[in-house]
Amino acid sequence: MNPTAAIVLIGDEILSGRTQDSNGNHLAKHLTEAGIDLKEIRVVPDEHAVIVGALNALRGAHSHVFTSGGIGPTHDDITADAVAAAFGVSISVRDDARAILATNYDNPADLNEMRLRMARIPDGAILIDNPISKAPGFSLGNVHVMAGVPVIFEAMVAGLLPRLTGGAPMRSISVRVDKPEGEVAAGLARIAADFPALSLGSYPFVKGSSFGTNIVARGTDAALLAAAEAEILTLQ
Amino acid sequence: MNPTAAIVLIGDEILSGRTQDSNGNHLAKHLTEAGIDLKEIRVVPDEHAVIVGALNALRGAHSHVFTSGGIGPTHDDITADAVAAAFGVSISVRDDARAILATNYDNPADLNEMRLRMARIPDGAILIDNPISKAPGFSLGNVHVMAGVPVIFEAMVAGLLPRLTGGAPMRSISVRVDKPEGEVAAGLARIAADFPALSLGSYPFVKGSSFGTNIVARGTDAALLAAAEAEILTLQ
Repeated sequence: MNPTAAIVLIGDEILSGRTQDSNGNHLAKHLTEAGIDLKEIRVVPDEHAVIVGALNALRGAHSHVFTSGGIGPTHDDITADAVAAAFGVSISVRDDARAILATNYDNPADLNEMRLRMARIPDGAILIDNPISKAPGFSLGNVHVMAGVPVIFEAMVAGLLPRLTGGAPMRSISVRVDKPEGEVAAGLARIAADFPALSLGSYPFVKGSSFGTNIVARGTDAALLAAAEAEILTLQ
Repeated sequence: MNPTAAIVLIGDEILSGRTQDSNGNHLAKHLTEAGIDLKEIRVVPDEHAVIVGALNALRGAHSHVFTSGGIGPTHDDITADAVAAAFGVSISVRDDARAILATNYDNPADLNEMRLRMARIPDGAILIDNPISKAPGFSLGNVHVMAGVPVIFEAMVAGLLPRLTGGAPMRSISVRVDKPEGEVAAGLARIAADFPALSLGSYPFVKGSSFGTNIVARGTDAALLAAAEAEILTLQ
């Protein structure tokens, strides 16, 4: 069995529709390649109790929980405190995090009180490197806390993932059929029954006035996938 | 108090990273305009028990729950059954839904057994019109079930939202400041304290090698927002 994961995206700006999240999709692709099965993505508002509740619901249910957002210097950056509260540990400015932040500033006074908020790390956490803007993320237990800005999030993911133990990479094949779903559904159900070790999905699309279907098979066994692909091609 | 909402996006294809969802962002924008406060988006896999669990957790906590995906004709389309199970009602092919579907086909035989799955509607549900491909969505209690294909989802949203009672539309103003967050954080915290009826958020961005901050204020009172905007502009 592969390890499982959930992603918690923290931010009113996604829920208001102002921002289209891309971090969830980015991490989803990399987890698939790493053989870690992503089972849930949850977008929550900048509300302490809701973040704590989501973390506690998900960290018990999955091997890993990844968060995005809310670790900057402003008053609405409350993720680190919520993680500390979820684990019941204290949080304070940590010397190693402060030293990393300080490398950003020639003038020590520029590391002001608000910026020092970014060096507040829950007790027991391991820092996650931020090669873009220094302010680190952190892992506490199985919860991995990263920035919301996509370039920083992606750099943190690149540093973090090799540290985690993955499973068998999930592979997939995709076949485009220029027929509506209703014409391939019966054949597809037969193929799905023939390949119980694979997960078969069917994704309809509309192009102009015509309907088509992308059929995707997923699994860890390349030979089984090739056999299923041959069957799916007969639906074209 | 405005009504609240959650969105449940159903689909392995989003969790695998194969598909970047756009339905959540589309509906989020329209809910904001309608004065319905979106409090959570949850992406779940094509698993009956997980869908039922998410629906039951969210329909009790919010005024409305909107779902996307899993109502087509194929074996992996299990949303309608999960909704029926969540409410403890039966589900069967309904005559009005079958009649709507039948208008798609000149030859009655084309309305085959798999396609008839799309006419399976839980008892007590109200149909949601699908002007694109006919197969209807439905509302059962406060749960509104729609298709995953974006053009169909968006058409269903357009038909459904005018039926729902909204609240005061959430307005927002946005100010771009070409300074890193750490230089505006203290001033922003003061402004946030001066305008407790507004929600102030700060969204850093990276452009090349320079850091900037978009500051967004949200609220229902246009005069308050204008006053806050004047204060925020002094941070530039």
